[in-house]
Amino acid sequence: MEFTFKAIGMVHSCYKEKFGIPRQSGLVPEAPATVVFDPEYAKPDAVRELARFSHIWLIFVFHQAITKDWPIMVRPPRLGGNKKVGVFASRSPFRPNAIGMSAVALERVEIGDSGPILHIRGADLLDQTPVLDIKPYLPYSDIIHTATGGYAPDAPPPVFPVIFSDEAETVLKRKERVYPDIRAIIVRMLENDPRPAYYNQAKPADSSVFGIRIFDVDVKWSVKQDRILVHSLDQLG
Amino acid sequence: MEFTFKAIGMVHSCYKEKFGIPRQSGLVPEAPATVVFDPEYAKPDAVRELARFSHIWLIFVFHQAITKDWPIMVRPPRLGGNKKVGVFASRSPFRPNAIGMSAVALERVEIGDSGPILHIRGADLLDQTPVLDIKPYLPYSDIIHTATGGYAPDAPPPVFPVIFSDEAETVLKRKERVYPDIRAIIVRMLENDPRPAYYNQAKPADSSVFGIRIFDVDVKWSVKQDRILVHSLDQLG
Repeated sequence: MEFTFKAIGMVHSCYKEKFGIPRQSGLVPEAPATVVFDPEYAKPDAVRELARFSHIWLIFVFHQAITKDWPIMVRPPRLGGNKKVGVFASRSPFRPNAIGMSAVALERVEIGDSGPILHIRGADLLDQTPVLDIKPYLPYSDIIHTATGGYAPDAPPPVFPVIFSDEAETVLKRKERVYPDIRAIIVRMLENDPRPAYYNQAKPADSSVFGIRIFDVDVKWSVKQDRILVHSLDQLG
Repeated sequence: MEFTFKAIGMVHSCYKEKFGIPRQSGLVPEAPATVVFDPEYAKPDAVRELARFSHIWLIFVFHQAITKDWPIMVRPPRLGGNKKVGVFASRSPFRPNAIGMSAVALERVEIGDSGPILHIRGADLLDQTPVLDIKPYLPYSDIIHTATGGYAPDAPPPVFPVIFSDEAETVLKRKERVYPDIRAIIVRMLENDPRPAYYNQAKPADSSVFGIRIFDVDVKWSVKQDRILVHSLDQLG
């Protein structure tokens, strides 16, 4: 049985590439994003009363993970990358139907000239993510107090402190005028050590320099002993 | 932007028609159901480790609510049916993309000859509902303690006590041998008064007899003053 759905809109977020994106919503609560509706759905009445909810669910497409060859098992980062679990026992984007769900904070509903724009925080979503549906987060049915979390009972604790070089600090201060939360976002993205899991084990510290793109900067960083050093923030084209 | 998805399986539930189905998952926690995978997805490895989670999300299609003419606004039963909210501020099945999400209790993962069968409870899903995805419920990101629930802050309280006629009681006792939780399920379905909202207002008590089909019986009931009376449980063909 096949079903065809049309995107109702798109997410615009500070995350310009998959690498470094928090692995669940809410892990970087400062991260700002917007949901902009496609013209057909851009009707103020369609979001009437939505602003009364503090949080919403986004149902979206993992558009960079659409694949016919879905993996039967995946290696969740939470298990150090060396243990496999079934794809349906994971929230991996690589799955039979590349559909994701994220609970995000709804900060504000703006009614602009081209329809509503939802201002959200805490999304773990790539820029340009197609949105299939928006639903209110209903505490009385979505909060399950008795739920136990299998192999991922708690949020992952920070792995490393994050420090900035003098050069990076100078650029960061300037960027903070435009993106007030950029420091917190970078720290939260890096403190969980976004390197692929095999790095964490094989190379507790290594000389590789990594880049993550966020807002309009490329953040260059590496792991130095027991900390993460941000070398530079380079302006993106 | 259009996306096509294939159902990975189907829900088999005690709810044989839309009328009377609880309006959110968990409201009738006793309701049993199974998820049976389509052959292509019926692989034991695809659910490995899933049984360690107490609850799972089902992403599914509201297959009896697919419509090209989606309503921009809906009248949630919670607001007595006389106030409209935007479709995206509701969990109504009638929406631009007829996709639903429900958190349900995972009781047991059975590995049968034709692949895994998930035994779940608390689903608010019609029998034969096509399932698009299964994901573990992750307490650390899915529970949002600070969330506030707009116009639906709490679970709806029971409206009426439910009583059974002698005739209904006799059949019920026999059915309980086959469906141990059938009594609780009927009571919970009815105590919230599943009549369309305009009834609750216009006719606090009326002579109409309603039927809800559950498991293999048609439950006939009506509202008598301040209670709901179950007249009979008739065997379905």
